[in-house]
Amino acid sequence: MVPRYSRPEMVDLWSAESRFRIWFEIEAHALDAMAELGTVPKSAAKAVWDWWATNPPIDVDRIDAIEAVTKHDVIAFLTWVSENVGDEARFLHQGMTSSDVLDTALAVQLARASDILLADLDALLAVLKRRAEEHKLTPTIGRSHGIHAEPVTFGLKLAEAYAEFSRAKKRLIAAREDIATCAISGAVGTFANIDPRVEEYVAAKLDLTVEPVSTQVIPRDRHAMYFATLGVIASSIERLATEVRHLQRTEVLEAEEYFSPGQKGSSAMPHKRNPVLTENLTGLARMVRSAVMPALENVALWHERDISHSSVERFIGPDATITLDFALARLTGVIDKLLVYPARMQKNLDRMGGLVHSQRVLLALTQAGMSREDAYKAVQRNAMQVWESDGQLSLLELLKADDEVGAKLTPAQIEAEFDLDYHLKHVDTIFARVFG
Amino acid sequence: MVPRYSRPEMVDLWSAESRFRIWFEIEAHALDAMAELGTVPKSAAKAVWDWWATNPPIDVDRIDAIEAVTKHDVIAFLTWVSENVGDEARFLHQGMTSSDVLDTALAVQLARASDILLADLDALLAVLKRRAEEHKLTPTIGRSHGIHAEPVTFGLKLAEAYAEFSRAKKRLIAAREDIATCAISGAVGTFANIDPRVEEYVAAKLDLTVEPVSTQVIPRDRHAMYFATLGVIASSIERLATEVRHLQRTEVLEAEEYFSPGQKGSSAMPHKRNPVLTENLTGLARMVRSAVMPALENVALWHERDISHSSVERFIGPDATITLDFALARLTGVIDKLLVYPARMQKNLDRMGGLVHSQRVLLALTQAGMSREDAYKAVQRNAMQVWESDGQLSLLELLKADDEVGAKLTPAQIEAEFDLDYHLKHVDTIFARVFG
Amino acid sequence: MVPRYSRPEMVDLWSAESRFRIWFEIEAHALDAMAELGTVPKSAAKAVWDWWATNPPIDVDRIDAIEAVTKHDVIAFLTWVSENVGDEARFLHQGMTSSDVLDTALAVQLARASDILLADLDALLAVLKRRAEEHKLTPTIGRSHGIHAEPVTFGLKLAEAYAEFSRAKKRLIAAREDIATCAISGAVGTFANIDPRVEEYVAAKLDLTVEPVSTQVIPRDRHAMYFATLGVIASSIERLATEVRHLQRTEVLEAEEYFSPGQKGSSAMPHKRNPVLTENLTGLARMVRSAVMPALENVALWHERDISHSSVERFIGPDATITLDFALARLTGVIDKLLVYPARMQKNLDRMGGLVHSQRVLLALTQAGMSREDAYKAVQRNAMQVWESDGQLSLLELLKADDEVGAKLTPAQIEAEFDLDYHLKHVDTIFARVFG
Amino acid sequence: MVPRYSRPEMVDLWSAESRFRIWFEIEAHALDAMAELGTVPKSAAKAVWDWWATNPPIDVDRIDAIEAVTKHDVIAFLTWVSENVGDEARFLHQGMTSSDVLDTALAVQLARASDILLADLDALLAVLKRRAEEHKLTPTIGRSHGIHAEPVTFGLKLAEAYAEFSRAKKRLIAAREDIATCAISGAVGTFANIDPRVEEYVAAKLDLTVEPVSTQVIPRDRHAMYFATLGVIASSIERLATEVRHLQRTEVLEAEEYFSPGQKGSSAMPHKRNPVLTENLTGLARMVRSAVMPALENVALWHERDISHSSVERFIGPDATITLDFALARLTGVIDKLLVYPARMQKNLDRMGGLVHSQRVLLALTQAGMSREDAYKAVQRNAMQVWESDGQLSLLELLKADDEVGAKLTPAQIEAEFDLDYHLKHVDTIFARVFG
Repeated sequence: MVPRYSRPEMVDLWSAESRFRIWFEIEAHALDAMAELGTVPKSAAKAVWDWWATNPPIDVDRIDAIEAVTKHDVIAFLTWVSENVGDEARFLHQGMTSSDVLDTALAVQLARASDILLADLDALLAVLKRRAEEHKLTPTIGRSHGIHAEPVTFGLKLAEAYAEFSRAKKRLIAAREDIATCAISGAVGTFANIDPRVEEYVAAKLDLTVEPVSTQVIPRDRHAMYFATLGVIASSIERLATEVRHLQRTEVLEAEEYFSPGQKGSSAMPHKRNPVLTENLTGLARMVRSAVMPALENVALWHERDISHSSVERFIGPDATITLDFALARLTGVIDKLLVYPARMQKNLDRMGGLVHSQRVLLALTQAGMSREDAYKAVQRNAMQVWESDGQLSLLELLKADDEVGAKLTPAQIEAEFDLDYHLKHVDTIFARVFG
Repeated sequence: MVPRYSRPEMVDLWSAESRFRIWFEIEAHALDAMAELGTVPKSAAKAVWDWWATNPPIDVDRIDAIEAVTKHDVIAFLTWVSENVGDEARFLHQGMTSSDVLDTALAVQLARASDILLADLDALLAVLKRRAEEHKLTPTIGRSHGIHAEPVTFGLKLAEAYAEFSRAKKRLIAAREDIATCAISGAVGTFANIDPRVEEYVAAKLDLTVEPVSTQVIPRDRHAMYFATLGVIASSIERLATEVRHLQRTEVLEAEEYFSPGQKGSSAMPHKRNPVLTENLTGLARMVRSAVMPALENVALWHERDISHSSVERFIGPDATITLDFALARLTGVIDKLLVYPARMQKNLDRMGGLVHSQRVLLALTQAGMSREDAYKAVQRNAMQVWESDGQLSLLELLKADDEVGAKLTPAQIEAEFDLDYHLKHVDTIFARVFG
Repeated sequence: MVPRYSRPEMVDLWSAESRFRIWFEIEAHALDAMAELGTVPKSAAKAVWDWWATNPPIDVDRIDAIEAVTKHDVIAFLTWVSENVGDEARFLHQGMTSSDVLDTALAVQLARASDILLADLDALLAVLKRRAEEHKLTPTIGRSHGIHAEPVTFGLKLAEAYAEFSRAKKRLIAAREDIATCAISGAVGTFANIDPRVEEYVAAKLDLTVEPVSTQVIPRDRHAMYFATLGVIASSIERLATEVRHLQRTEVLEAEEYFSPGQKGSSAMPHKRNPVLTENLTGLARMVRSAVMPALENVALWHERDISHSSVERFIGPDATITLDFALARLTGVIDKLLVYPARMQKNLDRMGGLVHSQRVLLALTQAGMSREDAYKAVQRNAMQVWESDGQLSLLELLKADDEVGAKLTPAQIEAEFDLDYHLKHVDTIFARVFG
Repeated sequence: MVPRYSRPEMVDLWSAESRFRIWFEIEAHALDAMAELGTVPKSAAKAVWDWWATNPPIDVDRIDAIEAVTKHDVIAFLTWVSENVGDEARFLHQGMTSSDVLDTALAVQLARASDILLADLDALLAVLKRRAEEHKLTPTIGRSHGIHAEPVTFGLKLAEAYAEFSRAKKRLIAAREDIATCAISGAVGTFANIDPRVEEYVAAKLDLTVEPVSTQVIPRDRHAMYFATLGVIASSIERLATEVRHLQRTEVLEAEEYFSPGQKGSSAMPHKRNPVLTENLTGLARMVRSAVMPALENVALWHERDISHSSVERFIGPDATITLDFALARLTGVIDKLLVYPARMQKNLDRMGGLVHSQRVLLALTQAGMSREDAYKAVQRNAMQVWESDGQLSLLELLKADDEVGAKLTPAQIEAEFDLDYHLKHVDTIFARVFG
């Protein structure tokens, strides 16, 4: 976690204190279930919850000090609870294994992290929708290979992003469901010393589903799927960030990140206004993606578990979720305040001498009876002249003067093919598909 | 694709011929839709389908030769069709762009690849279920950290794999749904020169959904999610393969890959029987996973598209699906014919002098009023002696002779804690959860 | 390997026939060494080489057929040699293990692949040098963040690439050295049944160094380093390819990939000339990079070896080297024939109304006694006006009219800071550093 | 960075304070050089160094506060220096760009990190050498595929690790050389406003080499190579850690991580002693490796630079070096204190009824005139019986009783092939190669 790329709510979720609070809940709910089943005294459960009701501060330093001796984090935590609750605490953790607590707690954290990320996605989607509708019919040049192709609208670009992040949301919901399971099944998952109903009770209390079959741990394919999904979402962020970076290029300048008063673009060049937020998002996307491979490598634990996954998760659990949360919020801000320059879009659209209409003429010639191959050659011949003039020549004028073209189409017919609105006639259809 | 790690059906799906057949279907169905809408003559559609009805061989060499000149694969294909159908073929591809064909065809291939992989998963699940039930109550030692922990059954190990591959199936179904979309929206996705109803028609014919908004291409987050999902499945394969490799170790030898007559384990050492299939699966899992990063990097195409994704997909499209298909089939074979040695499992289970029952005594002492910390120390003190004797000493005998333990538990009470069946009492519950 | 991204020499190196030829050399040289040491009859070595001198065709089908029975490739190969040479062949492979042959052969292949790649790098370096010198003083705008910064020359861009690929060459030489080792040390690397002098002899014959200590295999950290190095080189390719893609953008168009007569940029838009080669190189770079992770995962083989690395290497050995060879050659071609447009570079350089000189004025003001902060504000104030005019206003004129600036610098002094040559005065120094 | 996987010296190197100290050195040395060249007053340099000589505390909070306004870290730092030094500080950074400071500082940090890592490697090598020599002739079974192969010594295993980490050291030295360059070349690398001799002066002062040609930044292929090298080293750590994990398995138990008094292996099972340090190292290796892909993706910055690499490096710079430092130290501790059990090694070596000698008999039969194929079958036939008896039968006795074998070898001859020392005769040669 790099503080400058983090937001407090998500950071807090991964604090030692939050973790210990979740551990307490798991242990105490399990104790309740055991008390109900009669395997521990009800007084024990009462004692534990009574202490908790006093809202005791979590003494992280003390727990760490105990762990320094026991070299075991859950035992350290339980010892600390014991120090506070007294003798009745000895019934805690009965028949459970550390991983019951650790893995279920991680499930709670990842589920809560998902909730924050889903809220982030909702905020991003709302902004994308607003700005897409604002620019639904703002014409701009569509580009393939970085080369002018045919007209689109700026709203369509944002509708595309909206559709992509709607898919991101759907995928994250599925990944959240995959990860949100509870395992309290004992040392090797057989429930030898703990009743399966304890697991069911704790799962219900924590809003998790029951892990159908666990070993000592919750299987790591779930976590692999989770982090892989974050990696895909990060790549979608990179895509939209890359679009903004391109649009802000000096020569394009169709849109620009908001530039606040007092901001300095460069220590050396006072004239600079750089797309630093979206460049930053590109880098952050690389980082979120970098969690995918170690998460995949974590799946093949040995036998009923080894602990190699644990250190990996101590890094990527916080890092990937905190960074993605920050990135989604930053992207939302970028889109929200994005400076959009319709006049420049129109200017760029016009700069290639009408080349963007080449396909329509091609089709018109084909319709008029010319073979596709001949039509392609005829249009390409004129288009290349315009291209080489860097838009100083006009494709319309050249085509009107071309005998072969003239044999098939009248000047008026040719002119009719150079119509911007023609390209925008289905924008409503697409918006209806995307926004419903 | 490495031939030795491939199976014919999946290889065939990725052949040039299969691709061209799908291209034809897309173009011809689109032509039907245009004819129905009246933008092209119905005779054109008829001419094209009539030719196709003659079941013409796909002349891959001729198409390649044309591409060598045009440097454009779809144009080459259309030219070849034209050479065969004649003049009426000029209406094909009207208002479409190459990517309409290429991306929709890739969607068809990935959907069909998914169907093969889903059938593979079903076959694997069936074998896992059969062998899980066969060994539902075959006791074996559960291990954490590679160290003996407590008893499980071999059937539970396979039930765990069954549950994991059931999740794999669910994920693959979702990934298939994500990838199976049709885009026929023209040069920059605006339907400028083609009616959206053509897209709808073709989608229905090819059993795809309509891409709500495309640029020139289908957005690559879909493909990223697809290959990420394959990577997670590969990791699950690695996990089960790793389990078999461990079980076959000389010192463990609880299970073994089937060893066919005439097979040689080593050119130098005639005594060897190596788990080469599961080692191979471990390597193949690495390869399938290696497709994930380039697929994620493919998402951020520039503007309405660049073509950097194309070369990546020419590799990973076939490689990842062919390799995963082979790996799933190989794993199914391994599990199907796996030699399982219950006697050795029992022998291993017994070899540590009863250490596997240490937790039960710990709990019994706690129940009898000893503090958890004292109980832990008492059991650990005796357990370490057994450990250091490499199982020559008996934990049961040592505990009976321990005064502190004896103060809390009678010999009969201690003995009662050393009961294997105690660990298996919830196997039915778990099987019911997994297999329904 | 994808045929369209391959070149014959490198493909040939990875053919079954090439591999068997190398296997033969290893086995036959080892036999010579053993004969010399007296552990096998000299007649055996003679018989084997005599047969080889007849230049027998490699019957790959027959060897495959034998392998189908033995499930062991080296045994299959030796059996085939036996079928041809007769009884004397039984001394081949004495005391050796399959991996002695397989790993040493892989070392030979990777060393030869390196030689091809080094030649590719030399060709690329030669082209980069020629074009760098051609454009040593061609002014062009330097850009940071995609935004105009200050002038550079196009030759400097190419000199930077030259320096980077010189580093690539140095790294590849080191990686080649790392990989080019010979191990003939028997089943677990102890030379139990083979004299270490055999290894030394074969190493010398094949121009390899001796592996100081092997297990059954050559340690895979060597291969990991090798493929990691290829991944770094691929990333350098991506960088230069990305530069060309940017330069070819419609709005920039400072350089362009060569566009051959008859080429079609788009099936739908006859006006298009797309940077498809460099986009392709971007994708190929992703693929070469994708070999890095599985190569790293191959390092941790179990004990004296497992065979999980083998399938990985069957993919990435050919794929990464063939693809990188193709990519280097393609990049060389792109740079060799790159269309460079100095006039357009100048036009772009001029388009921002002199903003590129903002830093010099800042420094001049500081030198004239203004605080850095005040100077920054003064220049930024004027620069932002020019920026917002999209280069229609002139920074020079605005600064001349600015009272605060005028209090420190005369108009002539200001004008002196707007001098292009000022930026190019150290180009010679840099070229001397890079090209010597 | 995860505190529990970190050590103070490396953490300190990456602190804000350390970074600002390095920044100061770069700026102040550059000022010296400029003063010497006469472009700034010597009094300015004196003022700056005089202040520094007072050993002023670095006020990180103040610098952060300034950055919150300027949104630019280097400007914030310079402003803070100005606040302390006064007016003379305005000559700092003259003609430089932020990246001159940032990238050169990163080079200093990575070079210093390398020095720490090189010291770590030396410590590990020393321990490996000591323990290798201690167990130079401790026989143990060599295993391929996890299956008993032929005898090796435990010292050979460690010698192999020694050789591998010697290569790691060599690679890290090369990577350090690659990364340790100084760029002070101004906004786009042309030295427009700064003399190249300033760069040379600062490079010499900071023990860096001069970057021959930079853009605004030092090219990122250098960093990619650096982190790729760390990834390879991490994989070597994983390999040795995996070996220890295997050796500690209950059924193998040939070696064991040191287990400290008071340590608890499991909260539930008091008998456990788990290889948690080496499992942890396996996970940490995954994390160090996860830095490789983003570092490779950082290479292709746009034009003369974009800032996407920066966020990535803020993560992986500290994380990869801190984690690798910790992992090397942990591995050194594991090997240093590793409990080695020669008696168990001998027991395991003997457990397979002499199968480990199968190859020698095979060779003896071949030497005695039997064809390789027949000899293989004869030995395999008997070996499989021993295998299936789990070592209860004796290969020696079976072979003596085999007529076909008996026809070629006398009982005494067979017996002579079952000699452990035979396998160890070249250990001296190998040790001489590795340790010199």
